[in-house]
Amino acid sequence: MIIDIATLFPEMCGRVLDESIIGRARAAGKLTIDCHDIRAFTEDKHRRVDDSPYGGGMGMVMQPGPIYNCFRYLCRLRGVRPHVIYLSPKGRVFTQRRAGELANMNNLLLLCGHYEGVDQRILDEIVDEELSIGDYVLTGGELGALVVCDAVGRLCEGVLPDESCYTEESHQSGLLEYPHYTRPPVWMGRPVPEVLLSGHHKNIEGWRRREAVKITLRRRPDMLAQAQLDKSDIEYIDALKRAQPDREESGTT
Amino acid sequence: MIIDIATLFPEMCGRVLDESIIGRARAAGKLTIDCHDIRAFTEDKHRRVDDSPYGGGMGMVMQPGPIYNCFRYLCRLRGVRPHVIYLSPKGRVFTQRRAGELANMNNLLLLCGHYEGVDQRILDEIVDEELSIGDYVLTGGELGALVVCDAVGRLCEGVLPDESCYTEESHQSGLLEYPHYTRPPVWMGRPVPEVLLSGHHKNIEGWRRREAVKITLRRRPDMLAQAQLDKSDIEYIDALKRAQPDREESGTT
Repeated sequence: MIIDIATLFPEMCGRVLDESIIGRARAAGKLTIDCHDIRAFTEDKHRRVDDSPYGGGMGMVMQPGPIYNCFRYLCRLRGVRPHVIYLSPKGRVFTQRRAGELANMNNLLLLCGHYEGVDQRILDEIVDEELSIGDYVLTGGELGALVVCDAVGRLCEGVLPDESCYTEESHQSGLLEYPHYTRPPVWMGRPVPEVLLSGHHKNIEGWRRREAVKITLRRRPDMLAQAQLDKSDIEYIDALKRAQPDREESGTT
Repeated sequence: MIIDIATLFPEMCGRVLDESIIGRARAAGKLTIDCHDIRAFTEDKHRRVDDSPYGGGMGMVMQPGPIYNCFRYLCRLRGVRPHVIYLSPKGRVFTQRRAGELANMNNLLLLCGHYEGVDQRILDEIVDEELSIGDYVLTGGELGALVVCDAVGRLCEGVLPDESCYTEESHQSGLLEYPHYTRPPVWMGRPVPEVLLSGHHKNIEGWRRREAVKITLRRRPDMLAQAQLDKSDIEYIDALKRAQPDREESGTT
């Protein structure tokens, strides 16, 4: 998998991508993620890449030319036309499902707008997909690109040490994750739940499943409709609803 | 506004926060955002901060002790107990509305988990709120913390040059934003919409409003229920629905 990021802030992105799991995967050649400075592709003698918006208004708009030159360069460099994603609050909302689909592609180009955004014509000309990482306003597309790199990169072959690492995590299974405990066995008077110290794997598995179902019901009941639930999950949900009918919170508002 | 970030990757976060609008606001003293290395607060002689999960399973869990020491240090440093947010896929979904509420607080502490997460007991002991930036799995809480810093920081007084900068943006108004255009007036055979060159402010404003309504209807019809719409917006929506009844796309799946 090759991911190219086109941005006015390549160093900011690069520093984040050097760290942790993604950094190690890049160093080991499992994943290529390169940052490209859009400013290097301007033909303006003052290296300008933006200008005032037509029709008036605050802020600056990134011009189509430098972005297009950067795109052309990357098509030649990679020998293919990448799938081009523009990070934008106007995009479709990015989800774990979309991360899984993107992880099956070979070449992605993540285009980061900054200031008021990019000229609409570059979107019309080269962008295949607009993605939003959530319903909030950010200064630029860089954090969104980093989120996409992390979520997608983790799913590429050889990046995580073991497949089981990500099958149990929140959102991957359709449920929120059960709580974790580690040493010490008692901390500030709070003991680790006894079942986790029992060594009885079937009981531990059952407890974790019930905890995952319980927290999903409390915080994100909207997720249960999509989750893979078996008969005992459904019975447990019914029991929880009967026991505490008004303890449910919605986490989506 | 003071935001403290507690993380195992303080340099990664720091580099991002030095850039652009947030970087300038920090340099100008409008906003304090400091990163703190949780590893500096361990009492373990090998500087360990994590251990295997009780009950078995992959990955490592961050121990409660070092995080608690970091929290205590920050309470003393700031002279107040901050509002403590843990970035987690199990949290409530972060939105622009929540960003606005957090911008009214004086002290935030953003706690970043890494690896499999943190011991549940530190969440029970010090965390006021768990927030998720979206329905996808990330390697750690750092990108989430940076997203919260950016979205919240932008709303603090004196950070953006002019209030109108953010009132027109996507999600702030409840609608997605209209398209932007800048020089050149014709690019790759694509002209800027004529109205934007007219100098007629009322027509420009009307065109932008209709474009914002149109793109919101197409991509995020779920947002229209919450948006502030006037009579002419509603008439325009009805006209669009009559003209292209099946052109709506949902951006939320």
